[in-house]
Amino acid sequence: MTAQPATALPEMDIRYQQIRAQSEALCAPLETEDLCVQSMDDASPLKWHLAHTTWFFETFILKALSPGYTPPNPRYEYLFNSYYNGVGQPFPRSQRGNLSRPTVDEVYAYRAAVDEAMLGLLAMTEDNEVLARVELGLHHEQQHQELILTDLKHHFSINPLYPVYRERPLIQQRPLSRLVFDTHDGGVIEVGNEKGFCFDNELPRHGVLLQPYRLANRLVSNGEFLEFVEDGGYRTASLWLSEGWATVQAQNWKHPKYWLRQDQDWFEFTLAGLRPLSLDAPVVHVSAHEAFAYAAWAGARLPTEFEWEHVASQSSPVAAPGNAFVESELYHPVGLAEAGCAELYGQVWQWTSSSYSPYPGYKTLPGTLGEYNGKFMSSQLVLRGGSVATPRAHIRPSYRNFFYAPDRWQFSGLRLAKDVL
Amino acid sequence: MTAQPATALPEMDIRYQQIRAQSEALCAPLETEDLCVQSMDDASPLKWHLAHTTWFFETFILKALSPGYTPPNPRYEYLFNSYYNGVGQPFPRSQRGNLSRPTVDEVYAYRAAVDEAMLGLLAMTEDNEVLARVELGLHHEQQHQELILTDLKHHFSINPLYPVYRERPLIQQRPLSRLVFDTHDGGVIEVGNEKGFCFDNELPRHGVLLQPYRLANRLVSNGEFLEFVEDGGYRTASLWLSEGWATVQAQNWKHPKYWLRQDQDWFEFTLAGLRPLSLDAPVVHVSAHEAFAYAAWAGARLPTEFEWEHVASQSSPVAAPGNAFVESELYHPVGLAEAGCAELYGQVWQWTSSSYSPYPGYKTLPGTLGEYNGKFMSSQLVLRGGSVATPRAHIRPSYRNFFYAPDRWQFSGLRLAKDVL
Amino acid sequence: MTAQPATALPEMDIRYQQIRAQSEALCAPLETEDLCVQSMDDASPLKWHLAHTTWFFETFILKALSPGYTPPNPRYEYLFNSYYNGVGQPFPRSQRGNLSRPTVDEVYAYRAAVDEAMLGLLAMTEDNEVLARVELGLHHEQQHQELILTDLKHHFSINPLYPVYRERPLIQQRPLSRLVFDTHDGGVIEVGNEKGFCFDNELPRHGVLLQPYRLANRLVSNGEFLEFVEDGGYRTASLWLSEGWATVQAQNWKHPKYWLRQDQDWFEFTLAGLRPLSLDAPVVHVSAHEAFAYAAWAGARLPTEFEWEHVASQSSPVAAPGNAFVESELYHPVGLAEAGCAELYGQVWQWTSSSYSPYPGYKTLPGTLGEYNGKFMSSQLVLRGGSVATPRAHIRPSYRNFFYAPDRWQFSGLRLAKDVL
Amino acid sequence: MTAQPATALPEMDIRYQQIRAQSEALCAPLETEDLCVQSMDDASPLKWHLAHTTWFFETFILKALSPGYTPPNPRYEYLFNSYYNGVGQPFPRSQRGNLSRPTVDEVYAYRAAVDEAMLGLLAMTEDNEVLARVELGLHHEQQHQELILTDLKHHFSINPLYPVYRERPLIQQRPLSRLVFDTHDGGVIEVGNEKGFCFDNELPRHGVLLQPYRLANRLVSNGEFLEFVEDGGYRTASLWLSEGWATVQAQNWKHPKYWLRQDQDWFEFTLAGLRPLSLDAPVVHVSAHEAFAYAAWAGARLPTEFEWEHVASQSSPVAAPGNAFVESELYHPVGLAEAGCAELYGQVWQWTSSSYSPYPGYKTLPGTLGEYNGKFMSSQLVLRGGSVATPRAHIRPSYRNFFYAPDRWQFSGLRLAKDVL
Repeated sequence: MTAQPATALPEMDIRYQQIRAQSEALCAPLETEDLCVQSMDDASPLKWHLAHTTWFFETFILKALSPGYTPPNPRYEYLFNSYYNGVGQPFPRSQRGNLSRPTVDEVYAYRAAVDEAMLGLLAMTEDNEVLARVELGLHHEQQHQELILTDLKHHFSINPLYPVYRERPLIQQRPLSRLVFDTHDGGVIEVGNEKGFCFDNELPRHGVLLQPYRLANRLVSNGEFLEFVEDGGYRTASLWLSEGWATVQAQNWKHPKYWLRQDQDWFEFTLAGLRPLSLDAPVVHVSAHEAFAYAAWAGARLPTEFEWEHVASQSSPVAAPGNAFVESELYHPVGLAEAGCAELYGQVWQWTSSSYSPYPGYKTLPGTLGEYNGKFMSSQLVLRGGSVATPRAHIRPSYRNFFYAPDRWQFSGLRLAKDVL
Repeated sequence: MTAQPATALPEMDIRYQQIRAQSEALCAPLETEDLCVQSMDDASPLKWHLAHTTWFFETFILKALSPGYTPPNPRYEYLFNSYYNGVGQPFPRSQRGNLSRPTVDEVYAYRAAVDEAMLGLLAMTEDNEVLARVELGLHHEQQHQELILTDLKHHFSINPLYPVYRERPLIQQRPLSRLVFDTHDGGVIEVGNEKGFCFDNELPRHGVLLQPYRLANRLVSNGEFLEFVEDGGYRTASLWLSEGWATVQAQNWKHPKYWLRQDQDWFEFTLAGLRPLSLDAPVVHVSAHEAFAYAAWAGARLPTEFEWEHVASQSSPVAAPGNAFVESELYHPVGLAEAGCAELYGQVWQWTSSSYSPYPGYKTLPGTLGEYNGKFMSSQLVLRGGSVATPRAHIRPSYRNFFYAPDRWQFSGLRLAKDVL
Repeated sequence: MTAQPATALPEMDIRYQQIRAQSEALCAPLETEDLCVQSMDDASPLKWHLAHTTWFFETFILKALSPGYTPPNPRYEYLFNSYYNGVGQPFPRSQRGNLSRPTVDEVYAYRAAVDEAMLGLLAMTEDNEVLARVELGLHHEQQHQELILTDLKHHFSINPLYPVYRERPLIQQRPLSRLVFDTHDGGVIEVGNEKGFCFDNELPRHGVLLQPYRLANRLVSNGEFLEFVEDGGYRTASLWLSEGWATVQAQNWKHPKYWLRQDQDWFEFTLAGLRPLSLDAPVVHVSAHEAFAYAAWAGARLPTEFEWEHVASQSSPVAAPGNAFVESELYHPVGLAEAGCAELYGQVWQWTSSSYSPYPGYKTLPGTLGEYNGKFMSSQLVLRGGSVATPRAHIRPSYRNFFYAPDRWQFSGLRLAKDVL
Repeated sequence: MTAQPATALPEMDIRYQQIRAQSEALCAPLETEDLCVQSMDDASPLKWHLAHTTWFFETFILKALSPGYTPPNPRYEYLFNSYYNGVGQPFPRSQRGNLSRPTVDEVYAYRAAVDEAMLGLLAMTEDNEVLARVELGLHHEQQHQELILTDLKHHFSINPLYPVYRERPLIQQRPLSRLVFDTHDGGVIEVGNEKGFCFDNELPRHGVLLQPYRLANRLVSNGEFLEFVEDGGYRTASLWLSEGWATVQAQNWKHPKYWLRQDQDWFEFTLAGLRPLSLDAPVVHVSAHEAFAYAAWAGARLPTEFEWEHVASQSSPVAAPGNAFVESELYHPVGLAEAGCAELYGQVWQWTSSSYSPYPGYKTLPGTLGEYNGKFMSSQLVLRGGSVATPRAHIRPSYRNFFYAPDRWQFSGLRLAKDVL
């Protein structure tokens, strides 16, 4: 976060406009009503995402560093604060869906007012602190772009009408490549971000000692996961962590989140509606508990975040599927690469066995922005890679995503690993 | 319900159109977003009310009695079933706010399609069963018109922006009349509906034996209730029923639902926004528990539903405030009558001490419509009178409204009674 | 409660000793551990019952009316207060089972100390207030004697070892008499206690108007209830009140509380252990919701409390089964009477359709004892009759027991009624 | 666990008797009632600990490896299974306190029967599998010996009578030594068990890379933690992890678990009753969240489990306070050492910042015993060291204890660490 965003600076105003426009483009195909629903406590209404990302620029840049700025509505400070106690007690998260006002139009007007002020500020400042915070704000907005898609998917999935976000033709998946576990040497390797923008949780770069390990050359597929389901995986306590087994029973889990069985056929709910389950595509919307159980069943394990990063840092991002990084792309658009360690990015977030913890020497940002990442470093697990819903700027070897082990509404899947005996 | 709606029959199509239009008129001042929120499990989104009342006509008349009818969307049968198990397992009540589809426009289109079919049917039928069910459906729709206002008020009340449904000038309340307890003889009286449309729970008309009693000539006012608050009423266990005291502590109640104290001044949230508390207006949005506790503090008690009906059946509705029955009127529009037993109707629903139970010889309607009232006859209390949000057709001496003792989001207040010593 | 206990006064010290001894006799067959468990929030440890009944005498008589009294342990005032807010905030009910101290021996020592002080007081006082409170305390103790048995039964029922409280031979039930609905005239009748001790909730005696009705000549039997079970009664929503159906689904009810099916055979857990279901014995441990549903299935209804009292006040208690009132007797000890309205007392508490409400002119006792009954008059239903676990002194036509509609751990069953068409 | 318990083998029968006797000695000062209470879901009745440890020997040794063995009661297999799904669905944990039977005497008889069979088996077997499982069973029993004390303390703490387990004189603590952060070099170090018995979670021994770090020479004291309390630590959101702050608010935490403020004085509940807070003793009964917040307030951090092990493996256990390992000793019996890294063992379990995860190459035991440790490796944190309640055999550098971050009823405290800048 303290890194040099220098190369991007000349065009910061352009990037600001592009990224802000992208959020609105994601919502463009939707109805007003679609932007208002909070379908579970973990999710937020889409108009809240549009407003909160705007609040971020207003709070940490305009109010803090742009002296003449006047907020369009002083109550928004309270309404659109996500979790920054330094800004004040936030409006209760579980109530976000109960606010019909401001309306969608009013939220767009809020965005326009802040954008105008931001572009005015960018036109006349060379303050590095401003530029660093804009950089952070844009990455923050991109994180919420992925949440817009995952929250929308959850919301649509519980509607018996199965709404369609965007129609998409059924693509013939390229046939699944053979599953191979490539062996990697251990030793002391460097992890953490090396250059360019990153979040504070990717720093400092430091050494870790790896034992030799083996990593699968591709993700686990729907077809493979279906074998686990049909083999009674969800009914076999010995495959699960204790918390996972308790969750299976309490939630009555029988398959990945958006799968649906009708008679003898399997379907999955997608942003293109209900569709036949694509057996060769990567399994997605599984919790870490399901990932752990599948790995146990398969005689393997999940990789650590550093094993994953070790391999990823040796791979060229170019080797990833060609159009996987297009931000507005829906998921599963591409087949599997034929060779090497494929699908590192742009398909599904990959659960690792690593708890989300601070790196040695970790420092939060000063002030209220210090609440951005650090305070969530308990009880969560790291996911790596990035999904089809992930903006390209969040695709890098050192990027650490994090969720709770039972969470399933993100585009989360898994890749297997093994010890070297 | 089996009664003869004969006098109204010649104009049933007109009444149908008027009452259906009234529901839409209530929603006309609102934004699309305002129609989509479910702010608590007990409430429903306004668009759900618009759809469910339509579903009622579709299910119990068009599908049942109009052979050629084709539903515009077969899934609506499931989505807009409130609680009729005879129609199938209803969509979960607490999830009503999570459906962005059908949109508001689609709900209006659904209304238009059903209205067209209904008017077509009414134009050519003289089937008494059809007409009786239309009559029931219209009263059903009017019940939901009141819920539209109470659910909206709850929803707006939790929005820190305090939205205004309709602006309304601050009216000088007429000064409060002196509180007098009029004495009434006991004896065997007849209760229950005598003529005209009524719900099944108002039948059969039958005799009950009353002891002599005294009934207050008007409702308890905000100013009087404020004395209770300031005297520590909410902190005095001995005034409360055991369940009431548990609720006070669990919910941290300190005053009626929509009251708000800022510094030394009291305000109340209304459909016209946040306004100074009008001391001479009737207290409203109190639970039965608060009503019981206030009565205990005041050395009185609540009337039974039959004491109330006894007095009401002797009073002329004309004696009620002139414009209190205008269906779209907001509450508190009128002052207090000077004499007699005032405010019987059209101000607030009046909690009684009577449990909501079947009358001797009670019969439910045949078939699934039998679920309309009877299955709710446990753990609830009867309220009498009708509020400013109540349509005129629901103002009658025998009308029995019912809610749970802790419920506060309806326009509910109280009138005191005493024993004759 | 204000009634004249005059006839009993000459021997109050004897009665005090007998009734106090009876509580201890009920616990005599048990192990120390059996007295310590609180198996659900609604139940209490048996040693708590032994202590709380003692606390009642200490608090309302010795501390209040016996000047020189010194409590053996001042903390007991807090620990053994059940729900009297006037005495102070009670120790949390749900935590009663978490107190290993005072031990059972210490509780018995507490009883002995209070008994000694009470007998000393009784030997020298003629104060009517003292005597009236002793009378109340003894009836209070007898209420807890029934709870000792019902709480113990619940506690033992969840132990997979199925402990036996008292062995009891399997008795051949006398064959079930034919079910007959006797017709009773309506009219104004007097209800409420007429003479002798009673609780405040049985007063004042007053008139009510009954419609003509029909009442079954005996209780519903296990065999009859089994037909309801086997006919899908627990899966048929239309038979249930809305709250009842919600409870059936939430609790997964499939039969009365202590029934157990093993292969094709039905058993029931009793205080004599697990035994074959006795088809001719009255069904017991059903909630009001099950009683309502059974009645709907049988084309009948539950009686009101006044219909029951009307019949009971015309029957001679002598007509009840001979040994049914022996307080320590286990339930189901007797067969069914051959004629008349049988089983009014001494078998199972009979759910009525009447909400537990105050009688017209009801007055609570003055002071903290006013919390004894009145504050529970919401959301509960009246049961009449008395069970095999009920002390004889609680068998009278006017006695009103009360529980919540879903409660099942009392010895509660039902008798059917019908309208006269 | 696969390690060679060879040196201990000649005397396994002696050790078996000693350790089994120690469990009973811990319960000897208590009343029967004290052994029956389950004061929260996380705790168990003491008699359950006595039975479950017996069940362990019965299930995994006698039933599995001693052909002629006949269980005294076949239902105990179900009742005393803690969490081994491989043995069958365990009796629900939260209901353990609701079983009055088997009684305490019956549990002791169960112990005697199993002990007799075990000693018979030990007298005639040289089977290494038997001996390895006995070794495991004895360490298992010792783990429950600590739980007997922590569960008892919780149970007594909620009793307003403040029972005393064992009287203990107030000892003058030796004055607190100056807090010093000793610097330690980083580099690749070996962690995990090296020799002697250990649990599977301590294996395999492997290398980790440490950055240079600084570790406090002693534990945080009550007096130091009191400064945090008085400085508003429990009201300052910025000091807490997000989950910790949510817990502080939900549980209304204001100080360590067993602290109590009366007027201006601080007390703490101990197994010797309520006593004045000893300012120079180590703070105990704090959650990981409180430990994290304290460290943030103090400008420090918690050590990782490997930093702790690194220092511990260089220290001689002999350097620990002389009598700290006496198993039956109550806590806080000793003052602070004057020099070096003191209080590594035998005072309080020390929260680390390390999530409880498997070591690289981790293997569970085969069969159902594989459920012993591995399935709990999610969402918990590692604690190191051992407390005054910890048996000596559990004091070793590689020992990994684990609890959830909000847990406070164990003897858990903290030691600070810092980065080397």
